[in-house]
Amino acid sequence: MSEEKIAVIGGTGDLGFALALRWSLAGGQIFIGSRDEKKAQDAAQRLKDAANAGGSSSAHDLLVTGCENSHAAAQASVVVMAVPFPAQAAILKSIRGSLKDAILVDTTVPLAATMGGKPTRMLGVWQGSAAEQARELTPPGTPVLSAFHNASAEALQDLSVTPDCDILVCGDDEAAKKTLFSLVKLIPGLRPIDAGPLEVARIVESMTALLISVNRRYKVHHSGIRITGLPAEAKSG
Amino acid sequence: MSEEKIAVIGGTGDLGFALALRWSLAGGQIFIGSRDEKKAQDAAQRLKDAANAGGSSSAHDLLVTGCENSHAAAQASVVVMAVPFPAQAAILKSIRGSLKDAILVDTTVPLAATMGGKPTRMLGVWQGSAAEQARELTPPGTPVLSAFHNASAEALQDLSVTPDCDILVCGDDEAAKKTLFSLVKLIPGLRPIDAGPLEVARIVESMTALLISVNRRYKVHHSGIRITGLPAEAKSG
Repeated sequence: MSEEKIAVIGGTGDLGFALALRWSLAGGQIFIGSRDEKKAQDAAQRLKDAANAGGSSSAHDLLVTGCENSHAAAQASVVVMAVPFPAQAAILKSIRGSLKDAILVDTTVPLAATMGGKPTRMLGVWQGSAAEQARELTPPGTPVLSAFHNASAEALQDLSVTPDCDILVCGDDEAAKKTLFSLVKLIPGLRPIDAGPLEVARIVESMTALLISVNRRYKVHHSGIRITGLPAEAKSG
Repeated sequence: MSEEKIAVIGGTGDLGFALALRWSLAGGQIFIGSRDEKKAQDAAQRLKDAANAGGSSSAHDLLVTGCENSHAAAQASVVVMAVPFPAQAAILKSIRGSLKDAILVDTTVPLAATMGGKPTRMLGVWQGSAAEQARELTPPGTPVLSAFHNASAEALQDLSVTPDCDILVCGDDEAAKKTLFSLVKLIPGLRPIDAGPLEVARIVESMTALLISVNRRYKVHHSGIRITGLPAEAKSG
């Protein structure tokens, strides 16, 4: 069980919902955020139903609340941005006044497909990456991390599946990384990897387009990445 | 044993030498290319010595010749470019007249470090990637593939080590990919993965900077990548 209060901004979408589901099953206190409070509340109910259907004995105890995005952000110690890239900047502006010493975790991937292009191509982001754009749009002092780009939302939503994927975490705040590492480890099958400073996020984000390309070639739905050659301590997660 | 004749342009360098070593031990006919024929011949001898030191019983039968780059390219059905990025364009221009129906395999990574910058940063290449620059500089009709960026030269050179790494292959020529896949499979521990068209090389190239970042964080020397979630046929290599 984690003591962190986690807001998932865009928690009604595929990746956001999947992370909220997995973390709530691990005992986390989750605030599902949406621009529309009613949709957030519906997603919270849908999450409880999914947990029940997945056979979780503790589904009735889940600490999940649906809120408007800025209300979700205001209550959290960790705020996960899981919105489509075209919505990222506007939503960040709408919640940044509500961030209270929270860690911001950006999961956004600037896929060309989010603006009508190919899913195997990226958009150029002036700051270098969606994560660095997020940092520019958050208050000074807010630790900004980048993670979860390469996790399959489909695999995370399917409770009969154990994901097989490393989570590459980028950021410049070591304490915040440590907190996020503990949250990643709450989800079976995921292993956090320290990929370096936030500027490396441009590489990690683009690996999503690579995995989409691999998915197409091999007719699979959730290829992932594992880093090899690491010492045993990292191997054990 | 492969029937391909493989030229390794820049075969005196770390990655080129390592590939030449592994392929020659697998029975391939190798032409080590260098701008300096004498250096190429020295590398061929060094390769035989390394094979002997590694305990290969067939080291005296190795088919390895050192040649000036264009002479190496002229004799090969597969030409592997393993030169530092700043030398790539000039060397391609010097060998392109010698390519005879050969497949060109570019391994170049435009790391900022190749021009005095940080090893965890990339240079921008106008064409999108070093591989696409290579395509622009080769004769029309030459199949250009991109591969081996993320393989550790150190692990490949150490014959006591079995590398643990997928080789992400990008390119637009399916027959050429099939040929290269068979060459990748000659090296124990490597698995070829079809990563899609050549334009995806810009992502795969940048993953080298990511792995360098991971190496630094975890104080290791040869982290690698494995793709998960693929069907069994790919799993078996």
